[in-house]
Amino acid sequence: MDFSTIVIPEAAGTAMLVLLGCGVVANVVLPRTKGFDGGWLLVNFGWGLAVFAGVYVAFSTGAHINPAVTFGIWASGAEDFYVPPEGTEGQEAIPVTAGNGFAYIFAQMLGACIGAIVVYLAYKKHFDQDADPASKLAVFSTGPAIRSYGWNLVTEIVGTFVLVFVILHFAKTPSGLGPLAVALLVLGIGASLGGPTGYAINPARDLGPRIAHALLPIKGKGSSDWSYAWVPVLGPILGGVLGGLAAAGLTS
Amino acid sequence: MDFSTIVIPEAAGTAMLVLLGCGVVANVVLPRTKGFDGGWLLVNFGWGLAVFAGVYVAFSTGAHINPAVTFGIWASGAEDFYVPPEGTEGQEAIPVTAGNGFAYIFAQMLGACIGAIVVYLAYKKHFDQDADPASKLAVFSTGPAIRSYGWNLVTEIVGTFVLVFVILHFAKTPSGLGPLAVALLVLGIGASLGGPTGYAINPARDLGPRIAHALLPIKGKGSSDWSYAWVPVLGPILGGVLGGLAAAGLTS
Amino acid sequence: MDFSTIVIPEAAGTAMLVLLGCGVVANVVLPRTKGFDGGWLLVNFGWGLAVFAGVYVAFSTGAHINPAVTFGIWASGAEDFYVPPEGTEGQEAIPVTAGNGFAYIFAQMLGACIGAIVVYLAYKKHFDQDADPASKLAVFSTGPAIRSYGWNLVTEIVGTFVLVFVILHFAKTPSGLGPLAVALLVLGIGASLGGPTGYAINPARDLGPRIAHALLPIKGKGSSDWSYAWVPVLGPILGGVLGGLAAAGLTS
Amino acid sequence: MDFSTIVIPEAAGTAMLVLLGCGVVANVVLPRTKGFDGGWLLVNFGWGLAVFAGVYVAFSTGAHINPAVTFGIWASGAEDFYVPPEGTEGQEAIPVTAGNGFAYIFAQMLGACIGAIVVYLAYKKHFDQDADPASKLAVFSTGPAIRSYGWNLVTEIVGTFVLVFVILHFAKTPSGLGPLAVALLVLGIGASLGGPTGYAINPARDLGPRIAHALLPIKGKGSSDWSYAWVPVLGPILGGVLGGLAAAGLTS
Repeated sequence: MDFSTIVIPEAAGTAMLVLLGCGVVANVVLPRTKGFDGGWLLVNFGWGLAVFAGVYVAFSTGAHINPAVTFGIWASGAEDFYVPPEGTEGQEAIPVTAGNGFAYIFAQMLGACIGAIVVYLAYKKHFDQDADPASKLAVFSTGPAIRSYGWNLVTEIVGTFVLVFVILHFAKTPSGLGPLAVALLVLGIGASLGGPTGYAINPARDLGPRIAHALLPIKGKGSSDWSYAWVPVLGPILGGVLGGLAAAGLTS
Repeated sequence: MDFSTIVIPEAAGTAMLVLLGCGVVANVVLPRTKGFDGGWLLVNFGWGLAVFAGVYVAFSTGAHINPAVTFGIWASGAEDFYVPPEGTEGQEAIPVTAGNGFAYIFAQMLGACIGAIVVYLAYKKHFDQDADPASKLAVFSTGPAIRSYGWNLVTEIVGTFVLVFVILHFAKTPSGLGPLAVALLVLGIGASLGGPTGYAINPARDLGPRIAHALLPIKGKGSSDWSYAWVPVLGPILGGVLGGLAAAGLTS
Repeated sequence: MDFSTIVIPEAAGTAMLVLLGCGVVANVVLPRTKGFDGGWLLVNFGWGLAVFAGVYVAFSTGAHINPAVTFGIWASGAEDFYVPPEGTEGQEAIPVTAGNGFAYIFAQMLGACIGAIVVYLAYKKHFDQDADPASKLAVFSTGPAIRSYGWNLVTEIVGTFVLVFVILHFAKTPSGLGPLAVALLVLGIGASLGGPTGYAINPARDLGPRIAHALLPIKGKGSSDWSYAWVPVLGPILGGVLGGLAAAGLTS
Repeated sequence: MDFSTIVIPEAAGTAMLVLLGCGVVANVVLPRTKGFDGGWLLVNFGWGLAVFAGVYVAFSTGAHINPAVTFGIWASGAEDFYVPPEGTEGQEAIPVTAGNGFAYIFAQMLGACIGAIVVYLAYKKHFDQDADPASKLAVFSTGPAIRSYGWNLVTEIVGTFVLVFVILHFAKTPSGLGPLAVALLVLGIGASLGGPTGYAINPARDLGPRIAHALLPIKGKGSSDWSYAWVPVLGPILGGVLGGLAAAGLTS
C-alpha cells in the first residue's frame, strides 16, 4: 500500500467536503452574501452535498473523509478500510493497519485545513465586513447553542453513532444510490440532530478549520474557542466506535 | 422463524425512524436550537430522511417500521411480510402469521420508545428551557391543528392510505431507488397531507413516544394528551388496511 | 385493449397526483394548518412528489396522468401510448388510437375530480375557517398572478413544452431514476416557470378540481373563475403538442 | 463529425438550462410572482434542476452546456469531448478538435441567448412592472454582492474548479445517478459558493443572457453592466481548465 494512494484522494475529498460545507455556513452567516439568513435547511443541503462531492473525489479510498468513519470501521472488526466494488479496475483493497489508519486521519486533517483556507479566499470580501466574531468562527467550526460540555458531548455521540451505524448498513443493502445515500444521511442528521451543537460528527471537519481560523489573518476575528474544541473531536470518535460496534453486533 | 430475527432489526429501524423524526421536531420547536422555526419543509425532510435511515437499518425484515404497513400487507392478502430480493444471501422470507405480526408490532413499539428517549437525551438542555408544554409534547407525538376527532381521523386515514397504497406499488415497478422511494413518499405525504394533524400515519411513531413523554422527567412538561392518542393509532391502522385492500384489488 | 386496463390505473394515478398536489396548496394557503405560509419551495416539493406517487400508481399505463402528455405522445408520431419495459410481465403495449386516447383523458378527468374531493375531506375543518374565497379556490385550480390571458397562455405553453419535451428525452437516455426523474422535472418547472400562472401544465389537474370546486359545498366559497378556465386547458395542450413535435424532430 | 450533430442538441440543452435557471431568478426577484422572495434554496433548486433538464436534452453530445466544461475536458488531455456509454445506439464519440470545440461553444452561446429570450416571454407581465433595474438584470446575468473584480474572479474560479473537478470524477465512480449527479453538484455549489457572486460558473450562462438583456425591449431596464461581464467569463474558463488539469493529475 503506497502512502500517497490513501493520502492524496482522502485529503482532496476532505478538502472538498470542508470547502462546500463551511462554504454554506459562510453564505448563511456572513454579511451581504446572496444566501444570508437562508435558513437551516439550506445549511443542511450545503453540508449534505458537500459530502456528496467529497465522496466522489475520495472514492478510491472508500471516502471516509471523517476520522469517526475510520475509527468506526476499525471498531466494527472489518479487515479492510476499503474494498473496491467488483468490476472496479486499478484499485486494491486497503487493509486495516495502524499505518493506514494514520494515513487516513493525517489526510483528513490536512484536507480539512486546505478546504477551510479556500473558503476564506472565496468569501474574502465578506470576511472583511464588520460582523460578530462568533459568526466568523461559525464558518469554520461548530459551537454549542447552549454550552454544556457533557450534554454537548452526548449530542455529538448520538449524531455520529447514527452516521456510522447507518453507513455500515448501506453495504449490506441492495441500492444503487452510491454517494447520494451518504449525502442524504448527513442532510437528515443535520436536520434532526444538528440543533444543539451544529453537528460536527467529524473531528477533522471541526479541528482542521479551527486550526485554519487560528492561523488565518481574518479581519476582526475573535477567539477560536479552544475550550470547546475537544467536544467535537471526542464525541464523534466515541460515537463512531459505538456505531461500528453496534453495526457489527447487529449484523453478525 | 426466530423471534429475534424480526424484533432486533425492526426495533432498531423504528428507533432510528423516531430518533431522526422526533429529532427534527425538537430542532424546530424547542427554544434556542440552531433550526428553531426552520419551517415545514425542514420538518418534512427530517421525517423523510428518518424513514430513509430506518429502512436501511431494518432492511432484513422488509423495514415495515410502522404497524400500518404490517396491517396493510396482511390486508393485501400477501403470503409473506417480507421476501428478500433475489441474490440476497442469508435472509429468508418472513411468512404472514399472527406470531410474526405480533413480533413486528412489539418491535415497532419498543423501538419507538427507545428512539424518543434518545431524542430527549440529545436535546436535554433545550428541554430544560422554559417553553410551552404543548411544544415539548409536539416533539414526541402529533396533535391536531384544529381538534375534531372525526375529521382528524379522516385525515390520518387518507394519509396512511396513500402511504401503504403507493408502497405496495413500488414492488411492481422497475426502479432502483430502494429506501429513497419510501423516504420521498413520506416527505410528500407530510408536505401535502400533514397540515391538519401533523401526519402520524404510524401508530408506533405516535404512541411509543407518547408513552416516553409520560414517563420521562421532562422539565415543565404538561399533559400527554391521552384523549387524542387513539386517533393516530386507529386512523393509520384503518388507512393501512384500506390501502392494502385497494392495492390488492387494483393490481390483481 | 380492455377499456378498464387504461381507465383504472390512469384514474387512480391522477387522483393521487391531485390529492397530493392540491393537498400541499391547502397546507400552505388555508388558515391554521401546520404548513401555513410554508413557501414556494414547499409547494414545488408537494407537486413534484405528487407526480412521483402518481407515476408509480399509474405505471401500467405509462403514467401520463396529464392530457398534455397524451397529446404530446400523439403529436410525436409514436405508435404506442405506452410500451412496457423489457422484462415486465403481464403488460401489453397500448397503441395510439382515438379510443385509447379518449380512455386516457376520460380517466385523467375522473381521477382529478376524485383527488380534489379527497383533499376537501382531508382539510375539511380548515375549509370551514374564514378565509379569502380566492385562497379556497387556489387549493383546487391555478390562477394568474397578473391576469392577461394572452401572456398567461404563453407561460402555460412554455411550461408544458418543457415538461413534454424533456420527458420524451428520458426514454432515450440511460438513467435508473424512473418516476423520480419526472418528479424532479415538475419540481424544477414549478420553481422556474410557475411564477406567473402557478404552473397548471396539465388540463386535467386544473379543470377536474375546478369542477369539484363548483360542485362541493365549501363554506364561504366564491367564484370558480370560469373565465380563466380555458387558459390552463388550451395552453398545456398546445405546449404538449409543440413539445412532442420538437422532441420528434430533434431526435429523429 | 457533422456540425449539426453537436450544435443542435448542445444549443437545445443550453437553452433549457438558461430557461429554467434564469426562470427561477425571475420568479424570486420580479414583482408579483408566486415565488417572490422565495429564498436562496429555491434559487439553488431551480438552477440544479435546470441542469438536470438540460443534461437530458443534450445527452447525445455529453451535455457540456457550459464552455468551462468544454475547456476543462480539453485541459484534462482527454481524446474525446464525449464517449457514448456502452450499449447506446446511433451515437459516435466526438473527438477533441478545434472545430468541435468551436461548435460546442457556439451552440452554448446560441442556446443561452434563446433561453433568456423565452424567460422574458414567460415572465413578460412581471418585467412590465416597476422594479429596480438591477433586479431585472439579475434575471439574466450574475452580479457581485460586493464588487471587487479580483476577489470576484477568485470566487468564480473556485466554484467552477469544483464543478469540473468533481464532474470528471463521476465517470470513474460506479453510480447510477446520471444527470441527477450533475444537478445535485450544481445545487451544492450554489448553496455553498454562490454567496459572493451568484455562481455564474458558466461563461455562456452569463454572457448569452447579458447580450439578450442588452437587445430585448425590457421596460425600465438599466445598464447591462458590461464592466463586470468579463469576470463570469474569464473566471469559469480558468476554473474549468484548472479543474481539468487537477482531475487529470489526481487520477492518472
